[in-house]
Amino acid sequence: MEAGEGVSGTTPTEEMNGAGNLMDFLDEPFPDVGTYEDFHTIDWLREKSRDTDRHRKITSKSKESFWELIKSLLDAWSGWVVMLLIGLLSGTLAGVIDLAVDWMTDLKEGVCLTAFYYSHEQCCWTSNETTFDDRDKCPQWQKWAELMTGHAEGGGAYLLNYFLYVLWALLFSFLAVSLVRVFAPYACGSGIPEIKTILSGFIIRGYLGKWTLLIKTVTLVLAVSSGLSLGKEGPLVHVACCCGNLFCSLFSKYSKNEGKRREVLSAAAAAGVSVAFGAPIGGVLFSLEEVSYYFPLKTLWRSFFAALVAAFTLRSINPFGNSRLVLFYVEYHTPWYMAELVPFILLGVFGGLWGTLFIRANIAWCRRRKTTQLGKYPVLEVIAVTGITALLAFPNPYTRRSTSELISELFNDCGALESSQLCDYINNPNMSRPVDDIPDRPAGPGVYTALWQLALALVFKIVITIFTFGMKIPSGLFIPSMAVGAIAGRIVGIAVEQMAYHHHDWIIFKNWCRPGADCVTPGLYAMVGAAACLGENTHSLSVRVEITCSSLRNTKRGGVTRMTVSLVVIMFELTGGLEYIVPLMAAAVTSKWVADAFGKEGIYESHIQLNGYPYLDVRDEFTHRTLATDVMRPRRNDPPLAVLTQDSTTVEDVETLIKDTDYNGFPVVVSRESERLIGFVQRRDLTLAISLYTLIIENARQKQDGVVSSSVVYFTEDGPQMPLSNPQPLKLRRVLNLSPFTVTDHTPMETVVDIFRKLGLRQCLVTRSGRLLGIITKKDVLRHMAQMMNQDPESIMFN
Amino acid sequence: MEAGEGVSGTTPTEEMNGAGNLMDFLDEPFPDVGTYEDFHTIDWLREKSRDTDRHRKITSKSKESFWELIKSLLDAWSGWVVMLLIGLLSGTLAGVIDLAVDWMTDLKEGVCLTAFYYSHEQCCWTSNETTFDDRDKCPQWQKWAELMTGHAEGGGAYLLNYFLYVLWALLFSFLAVSLVRVFAPYACGSGIPEIKTILSGFIIRGYLGKWTLLIKTVTLVLAVSSGLSLGKEGPLVHVACCCGNLFCSLFSKYSKNEGKRREVLSAAAAAGVSVAFGAPIGGVLFSLEEVSYYFPLKTLWRSFFAALVAAFTLRSINPFGNSRLVLFYVEYHTPWYMAELVPFILLGVFGGLWGTLFIRANIAWCRRRKTTQLGKYPVLEVIAVTGITALLAFPNPYTRRSTSELISELFNDCGALESSQLCDYINNPNMSRPVDDIPDRPAGPGVYTALWQLALALVFKIVITIFTFGMKIPSGLFIPSMAVGAIAGRIVGIAVEQMAYHHHDWIIFKNWCRPGADCVTPGLYAMVGAAACLGENTHSLSVRVEITCSSLRNTKRGGVTRMTVSLVVIMFELTGGLEYIVPLMAAAVTSKWVADAFGKEGIYESHIQLNGYPYLDVRDEFTHRTLATDVMRPRRNDPPLAVLTQDSTTVEDVETLIKDTDYNGFPVVVSRESERLIGFVQRRDLTLAISLYTLIIENARQKQDGVVSSSVVYFTEDGPQMPLSNPQPLKLRRVLNLSPFTVTDHTPMETVVDIFRKLGLRQCLVTRSGRLLGIITKKDVLRHMAQMMNQDPESIMFN
Repeated sequence: MEAGEGVSGTTPTEEMNGAGNLMDFLDEPFPDVGTYEDFHTIDWLREKSRDTDRHRKITSKSKESFWELIKSLLDAWSGWVVMLLIGLLSGTLAGVIDLAVDWMTDLKEGVCLTAFYYSHEQCCWTSNETTFDDRDKCPQWQKWAELMTGHAEGGGAYLLNYFLYVLWALLFSFLAVSLVRVFAPYACGSGIPEIKTILSGFIIRGYLGKWTLLIKTVTLVLAVSSGLSLGKEGPLVHVACCCGNLFCSLFSKYSKNEGKRREVLSAAAAAGVSVAFGAPIGGVLFSLEEVSYYFPLKTLWRSFFAALVAAFTLRSINPFGNSRLVLFYVEYHTPWYMAELVPFILLGVFGGLWGTLFIRANIAWCRRRKTTQLGKYPVLEVIAVTGITALLAFPNPYTRRSTSELISELFNDCGALESSQLCDYINNPNMSRPVDDIPDRPAGPGVYTALWQLALALVFKIVITIFTFGMKIPSGLFIPSMAVGAIAGRIVGIAVEQMAYHHHDWIIFKNWCRPGADCVTPGLYAMVGAAACLGENTHSLSVRVEITCSSLRNTKRGGVTRMTVSLVVIMFELTGGLEYIVPLMAAAVTSKWVADAFGKEGIYESHIQLNGYPYLDVRDEFTHRTLATDVMRPRRNDPPLAVLTQDSTTVEDVETLIKDTDYNGFPVVVSRESERLIGFVQRRDLTLAISLYTLIIENARQKQDGVVSSSVVYFTEDGPQMPLSNPQPLKLRRVLNLSPFTVTDHTPMETVVDIFRKLGLRQCLVTRSGRLLGIITKKDVLRHMAQMMNQDPESIMFN
Repeated sequence: MEAGEGVSGTTPTEEMNGAGNLMDFLDEPFPDVGTYEDFHTIDWLREKSRDTDRHRKITSKSKESFWELIKSLLDAWSGWVVMLLIGLLSGTLAGVIDLAVDWMTDLKEGVCLTAFYYSHEQCCWTSNETTFDDRDKCPQWQKWAELMTGHAEGGGAYLLNYFLYVLWALLFSFLAVSLVRVFAPYACGSGIPEIKTILSGFIIRGYLGKWTLLIKTVTLVLAVSSGLSLGKEGPLVHVACCCGNLFCSLFSKYSKNEGKRREVLSAAAAAGVSVAFGAPIGGVLFSLEEVSYYFPLKTLWRSFFAALVAAFTLRSINPFGNSRLVLFYVEYHTPWYMAELVPFILLGVFGGLWGTLFIRANIAWCRRRKTTQLGKYPVLEVIAVTGITALLAFPNPYTRRSTSELISELFNDCGALESSQLCDYINNPNMSRPVDDIPDRPAGPGVYTALWQLALALVFKIVITIFTFGMKIPSGLFIPSMAVGAIAGRIVGIAVEQMAYHHHDWIIFKNWCRPGADCVTPGLYAMVGAAACLGENTHSLSVRVEITCSSLRNTKRGGVTRMTVSLVVIMFELTGGLEYIVPLMAAAVTSKWVADAFGKEGIYESHIQLNGYPYLDVRDEFTHRTLATDVMRPRRNDPPLAVLTQDSTTVEDVETLIKDTDYNGFPVVVSRESERLIGFVQRRDLTLAISLYTLIIENARQKQDGVVSSSVVYFTEDGPQMPLSNPQPLKLRRVLNLSPFTVTDHTPMETVVDIFRKLGLRQCLVTRSGRLLGIITKKDVLRHMAQMMNQDPESIMFN
């Protein structure tokens, strides 16, 4: 019988036999054991089992006294408390960001004389002189040129406004990029790729820290206000996750357990999307399908709670939205017809192509930034892109205004009272102006101008977004994508409408579009286009539909009465509730298929890959025939696996091993001959234990040359038998993981990948008929998967 | 080096060396290998890897010819096709069931003279003589007494109607129970416990078969029409799953792979809930959170698709609902006030208590049925319960009508035009009758009568439901639960309303309820109560809210115009979209906590346990300190583990082993001395291989006494070396699983449970330092969990 086999069955009292008292301190837990280094992967199983231990302790203690019972109840409730706090803070921050962005965006154009901190809309709203027809014009709001020169019109005033618009934009973006660079480099980008990686079990210290939260909030306002082609929706997820991380530190249950912390972060991500789009269910679905890795049911409820609280908080902060009285109704009066599925599906194809093009071009550009000189001048890059954006955006009314306003107008159907250029139709003089149910009419000159401007805006948005996403400022992609889709959709919608009006004798129109009927709703096309173009943000169809619907509700909420908000919902219910989902789904499904045909990776996965993070995608199906033996290390010509033996390694050997290798852990075997595996020890724990030991020996002034390093390290219950003259052996059983995960060398890699995914392993040992053969780490798995997909395996950089 | 270690690295061409040609047939797959026996658990990992193999084959073939490419495309699309078919069929069946139930429920009361197949509502709808005030009365619809005696009123007519009502009820339920007993015993109950078990990887042949589908559909109509306290919503999930199983058989991709089949069934369950409540999103959530076990993202999209198609189909079948013109508006005009949270939370407490009481009482009764004489007379039991139900239900107007109509009326707010007894308020004579915004009024005598009748109905429903659920007829629990909650809620609502009216000077009412204001909405209380009482059906809060809202929409849809349907949604949007979710969530959360305090098991889990199915709940957290070594077999005093050696067992040994034990599989070790594990062989595969071998030997007329049984069975690549005189050895490597799952004896059971859950294992081998110690099966895990929870471990019956 080998020595390692007498292990179980001994009780703690028997432990004193072999080892001296001095060394038994290692039987007690010592600080920092079980924590992780920066840029390393966590071990989900270990975190989970640590949480269970903690839970067990609290439960058994709670029976001891009343105070402990209270403490255990508080502990049980802490999850809900954290959710409440996250909802409150992220809702508040989103509200503040909304207000600040409104104000600063308008600041580029002019200022309110009543109070400088009013946005254009607030300014005219408080004014009594606003006429109904021109809601946007009131004497209190003055453009810069008017204020400075007294002239509101004319070429000089236009140029002055133009100049100041560009100047403000440059100022905002310069401030944003400088703040990010100086205070919190992690605050840039949308943050979603990194959050996905963190949630999958990776450590990036400081990514969700307080500084990142503060700087990201401030720079997000600046970046959005500068007029760059980016949205605040993605970064809001990052902001919410920072809130989540912040509140985790209040409770040791979450701050000391990386697994539990990730449950909170998943819920925080849901709250982030919830405030970004006012869509609590969409937020939970987004978190569930797109962002999260480990999402137990408990988290689902808590996420929903956090998302609800956040949406509520945002609403109660927003002082407008509920009380304003603007009388345009947003209502689609007509159902859609089967034949319209053709343009809807074409919009889906466009969405798929745009997604593919965007991802490829953006990744190529980001790679270029990483590898060339370009990456060294981030401030200059931001300034340059902002300058170009502002210069090109100002002349076109559809790019000058904020992107969410643009989307709102594009979604809008032309009612009778609509004064926008897009609604400049020629009315039939014989007809009185009805309030709704306006038949299709021929387009007036304003519509044709708008079409040209929209087409230019489309090209501009497509090109500039590729260069914008990935710069060193906070930048989201939802809104630019929706804008591209909505513009394309509206153009197609108007085209179909005019075709139907002018050619209602064509066979395809004959059946559903009699003259004088209202049969095409261009606003619906814009919505369908927006849903189709959300593809690179989220694979999930339901999330896309939910977000499109919510953003419709939301963009309206800006300037709409309560009644109108509900009328948007009627739109969905009136015609049968589900009916408008069909066009959205048709377009979304088509765009998904088109995009999948060109490559299955979304923009976030591509950025994860670009950064070399170890992210094991749940969606990637591994279907190759390789076996564990093909992936494990050591490879055929490598030196043998670095192992420890259970009772014959000395401290010196261990120190050499730690120095010579950079493995994250070492298997422990009975002996080098038998290669029977007994456990696995983490490098970090081993280092800690050895250095603690050295320290204690030194303090005890027992240090004799060679004593420490020639001590034998043992992992069994009982120490090895050795002469008394030998230095006292060091018992390290406390840091040994006795249940390492093993697979046989014949296990298909498919199964191994599944195990890594579902159990969240860091590494797995490979055996054949009981003998240890090798080790597979998460990095090995990812590199193998990259290789099988003909990608560069060296792109996976972290462990 | 031991013999088992030279295994990998040899190619198939080398395989001929050791064994003769005859026996190599076993290198080819033979039929039935990899299938499962009835009432056994499947191995998810194996199913998954088989599907990957199949997929790989198709992909590689698709490059060969155009036809194969088409076939591979069809294969890829088959998932969506199956979803479409499921949606269509389950929507159709739900529609047919709806119509039939309507008609047969009314048949108990009377008949339509225009056409006997019209329900009461249809009959009066087609009549022109209906006055607006009395929608339900028209000369074409005659009660039985009127038809037979000519007298519509009077004691005799009442008694005759009473008698016929009971008679029809008895007839329907007798037919239902007889059909179930004779043709499809699996058609009884709600089916959800069994579907949960099946989806978790258990085989119950015939449970989702064609006969079950047919008989369940027919008897469901009969059971619901008989007036028993049961709903059709749960069984519709079973019906939809039967549809799913039916369409699986069209595609070998699904019919031959138990894992893939379960993906389809998960989506079918979503479609079932979707048609039951008209709630596609609720259906998907229910399937995701309550029913399904393995729910990849792909299934989420497909479920959503199936649920949408099903809801659409149901809607287009239902010839009413969209076109009827009934002018009562369902609109809650007033928001709720903070103080109302107190009664809402009390309703939550009631819901939690009702859930606990119901589960305990129902399980006790079902256990009694199982263990005593009672279970032998299912027909008599159904007849008796139907008789009692009908006798007690007829006199009370709130129990006489169908339960969904009752819920609809209870949810309804009292508008000005409402003629129901519940709306018999005393109007202020000085006021003109306004259309809406009616202030709180004192209750008239009708309301007080209604309160008494509702209280009686509540007690009756609570008691009778306990005895009804679990009888040998199809029976769902959603509707009875909602009815109990809605009745309690309405009673509380009216009580609060009258208190607020009569005591508006009390401090609590002072702030929010001035005289003449409309401050309490009893209908909302009914809704909140219904949401609170759904607890024993589903743990999930979001599902509860979704289902309550949808059923509100749905019960209304029965008799409401399009406009009104959307007004119900306005109710949610108008007051701020999320506002009404708060009362629902408050009640649902409270009821969940109350119910959890008394025991975490839902009704479905309790029934699963009662039946002894091997169901490993994802929600049960295992937090005990036990190790794998405490659970594995053999236990301390058991005989040693039955193992096979890799090259020294004879056919006779194998046959003895199969005869003497009933294990589902046997580990294969290098030798009994070293106990090094090389693989695992399934009992079924072993039996098949041996019998096939015997058959071939017999056919080849080589049978000599003892030859067959003294042949050596070997699992290595090369056969063992032995004298030529010995009978040819039998190579069984084909049936050997070379990658069995192992854990060490020190692995915490918590981790083992996690592995079983997440990877869907059947069994797991236990090793210590490379030596095989024992085995843990799913049954062992479940029994251990039962033991730890102080339940009877013997209740787990299947493997």
